[in-house]
Amino acid sequence: MAREGAKRSSPIASVLITNGDVDHTAGLLTLREKQNFELHATGGVHDIIAANPVFHVLDPNHVTKRKVGVGEPFKPVPGLTAELFSVPGKVPLYLETETVDVGEESEMTVGVKLTAHGKTLFYIPGCAHIPDSLKARIAEADALLFDGTIFVDEEMKNAGVGEKTGRRMGHMPISGEGGSLNAFDGAKIKQRVYIHINNTNPIWIDGSEEKKTVEAAGWQVAYDGMDLSL
Amino acid sequence: MAREGAKRSSPIASVLITNGDVDHTAGLLTLREKQNFELHATGGVHDIIAANPVFHVLDPNHVTKRKVGVGEPFKPVPGLTAELFSVPGKVPLYLETETVDVGEESEMTVGVKLTAHGKTLFYIPGCAHIPDSLKARIAEADALLFDGTIFVDEEMKNAGVGEKTGRRMGHMPISGEGGSLNAFDGAKIKQRVYIHINNTNPIWIDGSEEKKTVEAAGWQVAYDGMDLSL
Repeated sequence: MAREGAKRSSPIASVLITNGDVDHTAGLLTLREKQNFELHATGGVHDIIAANPVFHVLDPNHVTKRKVGVGEPFKPVPGLTAELFSVPGKVPLYLETETVDVGEESEMTVGVKLTAHGKTLFYIPGCAHIPDSLKARIAEADALLFDGTIFVDEEMKNAGVGEKTGRRMGHMPISGEGGSLNAFDGAKIKQRVYIHINNTNPIWIDGSEEKKTVEAAGWQVAYDGMDLSL
Repeated sequence: MAREGAKRSSPIASVLITNGDVDHTAGLLTLREKQNFELHATGGVHDIIAANPVFHVLDPNHVTKRKVGVGEPFKPVPGLTAELFSVPGKVPLYLETETVDVGEESEMTVGVKLTAHGKTLFYIPGCAHIPDSLKARIAEADALLFDGTIFVDEEMKNAGVGEKTGRRMGHMPISGEGGSLNAFDGAKIKQRVYIHINNTNPIWIDGSEEKKTVEAAGWQVAYDGMDLSL
């Protein structure tokens, strides 16, 4: 959908980046035509983007960078309020050094609370574990979109595609001890949706035991083009 | 197509980058899973990639960077010989400063000569103008794949999507004075194919006068999935 009168445009007026890793930032390189939008992120994530000259294709005449602090509500578009909060995570893969502090809360991995018309949605695409403060924060959400990267912590190794555990990658598993599946039991969350799902995760497979398990526990599995009504 | 025995792989064993601009380099970010391949480029282009931490996702345990000098033949894969040569161009857009020297020959914009079984193909995706030395180099090619970015130099402005001329972007037009259409008349090139075609270029449109014009002059218009037999 083009904006009225524009030959080249998209309806995207505002972008919010919650993490500096490639799966969050590379898409910026396809938003680079001469189109105005605002780019919101924490100072830490903006620093990462600024440290990569390739992102200078985001022409400052068209792209306005807005540094957003954790805990500071802002309006990415009229009528919608967003607020960032730190979640346990780690620095992007390509900035890892020999010692990686997985699970620290910093500006490098954030979740976002979106509020409009009195309804609240939380978007948390990466989370290494769930502290009580996070549980309390989302206890009464109308919708929770949560890190569904892997079903079991050793999934990459079991599938023969990598050595790292999910937790080492900054992603807690869905199942097992300390998994996300039952972590929010008792909370008054109206809709729970797994997002950011790795291609090794069997919840992608219709009819799999794993998909049945998450659905039986009250979770939906997100898909491209999904609509949510709050 | 997966490599035999591999759970996650592609048949790509070797990558050659001829230019540091985003349309040439961003694809590297989707080749980053744990797969072995060789990355060939000039020192200048390798320096650009190295200056962007985001490309550190190309794990050195899997991706071997090979610096290739202009005029130094090498074998990117067995049975195929490649040789780079400078063509008139410019630095990538995101590295432009106030004064841009468009048309200089440097390591930043190169063409490649590919040779196998005694047949020769030239791939030149960006070229600001055609010096006699370039004409002589490709005079007897079996195939020439050449910069077809724009049909007329003022095309971006005419289409209302930008202010720059093609030449300012480092791309000579197909038509008009000094265009590529008839630049190789008299050369014994067996197949001529326009590649790297901008979405403003009317040669994309079946039945357009412009497409008829290039075909009448002996050029083909490339398309995704095109096969060439030499």
